[in-house]
Amino acid sequence: MIIIAEKINGSIPSVAKAIGEKDADFIRNLAKAQSEAGADFIDVCASVDTAIEVETMKWLIDLVQGITDTPIAVDSPSANVCAEALKFCKKPGLVNSVSLEGDKIDIIFPVIADTRWGCAALLCDDTGIPKNAEKRLEVFASIMKKAKEYNIDPSRLYIDPLVEMLCTSENGINVIVDVIRKIKAQYPAIHVIGAASNISFNLPARKMVNQAFVVLVMNAGMDSVILDPLNRDIMGMIYATEALLGNDEYCIEYINAYREGIFGTKK
Amino acid sequence: MIIIAEKINGSIPSVAKAIGEKDADFIRNLAKAQSEAGADFIDVCASVDTAIEVETMKWLIDLVQGITDTPIAVDSPSANVCAEALKFCKKPGLVNSVSLEGDKIDIIFPVIADTRWGCAALLCDDTGIPKNAEKRLEVFASIMKKAKEYNIDPSRLYIDPLVEMLCTSENGINVIVDVIRKIKAQYPAIHVIGAASNISFNLPARKMVNQAFVVLVMNAGMDSVILDPLNRDIMGMIYATEALLGNDEYCIEYINAYREGIFGTKK
Repeated sequence: MIIIAEKINGSIPSVAKAIGEKDADFIRNLAKAQSEAGADFIDVCASVDTAIEVETMKWLIDLVQGITDTPIAVDSPSANVCAEALKFCKKPGLVNSVSLEGDKIDIIFPVIADTRWGCAALLCDDTGIPKNAEKRLEVFASIMKKAKEYNIDPSRLYIDPLVEMLCTSENGINVIVDVIRKIKAQYPAIHVIGAASNISFNLPARKMVNQAFVVLVMNAGMDSVILDPLNRDIMGMIYATEALLGNDEYCIEYINAYREGIFGTKK
Repeated sequence: MIIIAEKINGSIPSVAKAIGEKDADFIRNLAKAQSEAGADFIDVCASVDTAIEVETMKWLIDLVQGITDTPIAVDSPSANVCAEALKFCKKPGLVNSVSLEGDKIDIIFPVIADTRWGCAALLCDDTGIPKNAEKRLEVFASIMKKAKEYNIDPSRLYIDPLVEMLCTSENGINVIVDVIRKIKAQYPAIHVIGAASNISFNLPARKMVNQAFVVLVMNAGMDSVILDPLNRDIMGMIYATEALLGNDEYCIEYINAYREGIFGTKK
């Protein structure tokens, strides 16, 4: 499972405070802790006034790169900010994200075309999030057409099928599972990504839903997840699921991760 | 999900002690707590010397029936003890269990033939547990032939595909998932049962593996599980998974179970 660590995000109050106070140690510690917990990418999202977003992204990215080699996911609602921010990165990471909304894809795809950057792509367009599987797959087809145009290999794309709240769903996650399976069947090398916690909005005991969700979407073929890697329980579930799905012979990675303290009772 | 509550079992030291000391309150409390936590059957297994097994089963069953209406799963390695013990039960429950070993099935099936008792049936025979899916399905076919002979409807059978330790497995739970899917495809009304914790023997942080396992086998079609219903986390995972699989529209049962205190932070 590819882990995109979500904690350096200005929409989290403690991070907003650290950004406001230019508390470099706070950011560095967060980057280090997430990296040690097994993050494959450190997501960096400033969530500040647009006037200072690019410079804030640079400040954050420099701090993260000063403390860890883990690649960065540059994260902004603005494609232009992402395009600027990725220049500050020493090595290719992930653009988080494009979609068929506005001109996002036409801003990002040319910038990353001849690089090794990956890109998350949400299955929505200017009309919003399509309700059924068929419409999401139409958006997917349009994104793949654009990718082909810019010669971006499917293996560099992280498709986000956009998980909605379970509490308003009539048929659970069947639509998402269907979309994941069809995408992976069509492009086996493509990545499918999702956030681990959106599913449980408005429900009690959210961790129960988040954990079971991750297991089920991994089973369907999701291979990348945006989460807090310091959440030991969900990390344990991911390692356990890899072993149960037959991706970790004799549980060697599971046992190693346990020994490294990524999950299990804190020592 | 059909919950078979496993705690009244003489192989658990505290229960063995209670049986030895004829501590009726201990047994009653265990029955009541498991029933309130959502058990569909209360498993009763004496695990005592064979000379006193039937009388101990009677003592236990009487205590359980004195405190709760939840039906009983009579549990013994001896088919003859099961056949005796089910006579003490006021209402039909579950025989736990038969297999193709020895004459178990020929002892139990005639006894329950014209009743509403259910029966757990393990996919093993006198040669032990078959290694591959094909052989297990052969054992299954033989069991179904016997069931037909005694006119026992598939809906009364709880097939246990026999989950083995993950730590010695090369391909995770693929064999079990395959067996479950094929059994359910052939007999949609049949139940598939399993213990929630055998999978994690010899692994650290066992609850991670047990929880992810339950989610994956529910997804494959397992509909009955032997577990400790006082384990709030695994109960939460089961309710969450039902909702995610589309079996709990708008999460109504999930929310109700949370409100009843079956999972979530203890109030």
